[in-house]
Amino acid sequence: MTKQKKSALKEQEGVSQSEITNSISIKNIQRKRRAKPSVEDLVSQILKGDITALSRAITLVESKNASHVEKANAIIKSCLPNANNSVRIGITGVPGVGKSTFIESFGKYLTAQGKKVAVLAIDPSSSLTKGSILGDKTRMEDLVKDKNAFIRPSPSGDSLGGVARKTRETITLCEAAGFDTIIIETVGVGQSETAVHSMVDFFLLLKLAGAGDELQGIKRGIIEMADAIAINKADGENTKSAKIAKVEFNRALHLYPKKESSWTPKVTLCSALHNEGIDNIWNIIQDYVKITSENNYLQFKRNEQNKFWLIQTIEEQLKSSFFNNAEIKAALEKQLQLIEDNKTTPFAAADYLLGLRS
Amino acid sequence: MTKQKKSALKEQEGVSQSEITNSISIKNIQRKRRAKPSVEDLVSQILKGDITALSRAITLVESKNASHVEKANAIIKSCLPNANNSVRIGITGVPGVGKSTFIESFGKYLTAQGKKVAVLAIDPSSSLTKGSILGDKTRMEDLVKDKNAFIRPSPSGDSLGGVARKTRETITLCEAAGFDTIIIETVGVGQSETAVHSMVDFFLLLKLAGAGDELQGIKRGIIEMADAIAINKADGENTKSAKIAKVEFNRALHLYPKKESSWTPKVTLCSALHNEGIDNIWNIIQDYVKITSENNYLQFKRNEQNKFWLIQTIEEQLKSSFFNNAEIKAALEKQLQLIEDNKTTPFAAADYLLGLRS
Repeated sequence: MTKQKKSALKEQEGVSQSEITNSISIKNIQRKRRAKPSVEDLVSQILKGDITALSRAITLVESKNASHVEKANAIIKSCLPNANNSVRIGITGVPGVGKSTFIESFGKYLTAQGKKVAVLAIDPSSSLTKGSILGDKTRMEDLVKDKNAFIRPSPSGDSLGGVARKTRETITLCEAAGFDTIIIETVGVGQSETAVHSMVDFFLLLKLAGAGDELQGIKRGIIEMADAIAINKADGENTKSAKIAKVEFNRALHLYPKKESSWTPKVTLCSALHNEGIDNIWNIIQDYVKITSENNYLQFKRNEQNKFWLIQTIEEQLKSSFFNNAEIKAALEKQLQLIEDNKTTPFAAADYLLGLRS
Repeated sequence: MTKQKKSALKEQEGVSQSEITNSISIKNIQRKRRAKPSVEDLVSQILKGDITALSRAITLVESKNASHVEKANAIIKSCLPNANNSVRIGITGVPGVGKSTFIESFGKYLTAQGKKVAVLAIDPSSSLTKGSILGDKTRMEDLVKDKNAFIRPSPSGDSLGGVARKTRETITLCEAAGFDTIIIETVGVGQSETAVHSMVDFFLLLKLAGAGDELQGIKRGIIEMADAIAINKADGENTKSAKIAKVEFNRALHLYPKKESSWTPKVTLCSALHNEGIDNIWNIIQDYVKITSENNYLQFKRNEQNKFWLIQTIEEQLKSSFFNNAEIKAALEKQLQLIEDNKTTPFAAADYLLGLRS
C-alpha cells in the first residue's frame, strides 16, 4: 500500500480517484438536473405560478406512459382546490378569419389589464399535422414574449375525446397556476367546436363579412352555440359590408329560441389587426359573466359540462374497449357479411356480438 | 265392478265418465285453439300472405317475454330470404298536417294500382299514450277495410331504440308476407324521425302552407333528410299560399349540398282530402327508386342502414348495461358529488367507475 503510494502509479491512481470523484459529482448534478420532480414539488411550484413546472405537468398530462398518466392524475387532483376560478373563453372561426391575429390582440389587451392569460387549443387533426394550430408560436410573436401569457399548442391524440380530455385537464393546471383568463382556440370543424363549447363559459365565433349571402353555408349548429359573433377585419373598405353582415347575423340569431342562460347573443365588429373593437368584446364577456354569475347559470353550466365529460368519457371507453377487441373485430366483419347476404339482421348480429363479451 | 255397473251409481259414474271425457275433449280443442303455432307453421303461413300469422309474429316481436323473443328471432331469420323486396317510405309531419288522411288516400291509391301496402309507425311516446299514432284505426276507415292493406300501430317501448328495432323487424315480416310497399309514419319529433329515416328508402315530409315566414321554425335537420316535401291541404283558398310555399321550399332545398344519392329533392302540392296530387307523389317515388336502383345507391343505403342499426344496438346495450348496474348507479351519484365539490375531475371519476366493472 505504502509502496503503491510512492510509485508512479500512485499519482495516476490519485488522478484516477479524483476523476472518479469528479465524475460521480457530475453524475449527481446531472441526475439532479434530470430528476423528475415529485408530484408535491410540481404542485407547490405550479401554485406559485412557475411556468416550467406548469409545462412539465402538462407534458405529463399529454403523455401516454402509464406512470406519467398516474403522476398527472395526482397533480391534477392536488390542483383542483385552486382551480375553477378563471373565465374560460372558446374562440372559433374558419381558416382565414384571423384567429391568431385576434388572439394576439385580445391577449395583449387582457395582459395590459393585469390579466394572466393562458391560450390553449383543440385541434383533433394535430396528430397528423403535428399540431398546426398554435404550433407555430411565431404567429403570436408579441403574446409569446409576454410574461403574463402562456401559450400551449394543441395536444395530439388518436381521438377527439382524448385530445379534449388533455385540454380540459390543462385548463385545471393553468387555473391552479394563477391564470385567470383561459382562451381555447379551435378550428372550424363541427366536432371539435362542440368539444370546446363543452368546456368554456363563453363561446365566441369569429366571422368575416362576405360579398354574398351571409347566411348561406354557415353551420347553423355553431351559430346556435355562440354567445357572441365578432365580425373581424371590419376595417377600410370592408367596413360597410361588415356592418351589413352585423344586421344579418342579428336577424339570424333572433330565429333561435332564447338561451337557457337568459343571455342574448351579441354581434359586434372588430379589427384585430388595428386593435379596434377588442375592448368591446371583453366588455361583452364581462357582462356575460356578471349576468350568469348572478343568475347562477355559470355554475350550473359548469356542473352540466362536468356531467357531460363524465358520461362522454365512460361511453367512449365502453365503445372502444368493445370494438377494439380482436375477437369482436373479426366476428363483426363476419356478421356484416351475413347481414349483407340476408342471413341475419343487424339486431340479431348485435345480440350475437354482445354475447361474445358477456 | 258388475254390481257397480248395475247400481244407480253406475249411471252416475257413466255420466261422470262421459263428462270427464267431454271436458278432456273440450280442453284438447281449447288447447289446440290456443296452441301457439310452431315457428315453422307461422313462417309458412306468413310466406303465403296470411294476415293472422303475420299479426301473431309481430306480437311475438313486440313481446318482452324471453321465449317470445327467441321465437320472434327464429321467425325473422326464416323470413329474411323473402324480405328486402319492398319500397320503404317514411312519412313525417307535425300534428295537424293531415298525415292520417294522406296515408289513407295514398294507401288506397296504391292498392288500386295492385300494390300490397303495410302501414307501420314509430311513436316513442306510445308507451305513455298507449300508442296514439295509428292506434285509432278509425282515422283510416277505408284503408283498414282494404284486404291489400295492413295497418299496425306503433309498438310501445321504453326506449326509441327498442321501438325502432321492433318496427324494423316488423318491416321484414311484412315484406315476407308479400307487402311490396311499406309506409312508416312518425310524429314530428327529431329523434324518431332520424330512426324512421334510417330504415326507409324514401323520406317524405308533409307540410302545410302557412301565413308567415315558411322557413322560420322548421327543423333544418328534417328538411335535410327529406327526399320530397309535399305541401298538403293545397286546395280552395289555400292554393295560392301553397304555391308560394312551394317556391320557398325549393329555394331552401337549394341551400343544401347535393345528396349522395344524386337525387334532387322535390317539392310538390297535394290535397289528400280531395285525392289530388297523390299520383304525382307516387311518380316521384318511382323515379327515385329507378334512379337509385340504377346507380346502386338504394342497395348502398340499405347496407349503411344495417351497419347503423348494428352499431347503434351494440352501443345502446353497452351503455344501458353499464349505467343500469346498481353498483355503478350508486357510485356514479357519489362521484358526481365529488366532482361538484372539486375533489375529483370528470375524467378521474370516469376511470374510477370503469374500473369497478373490469
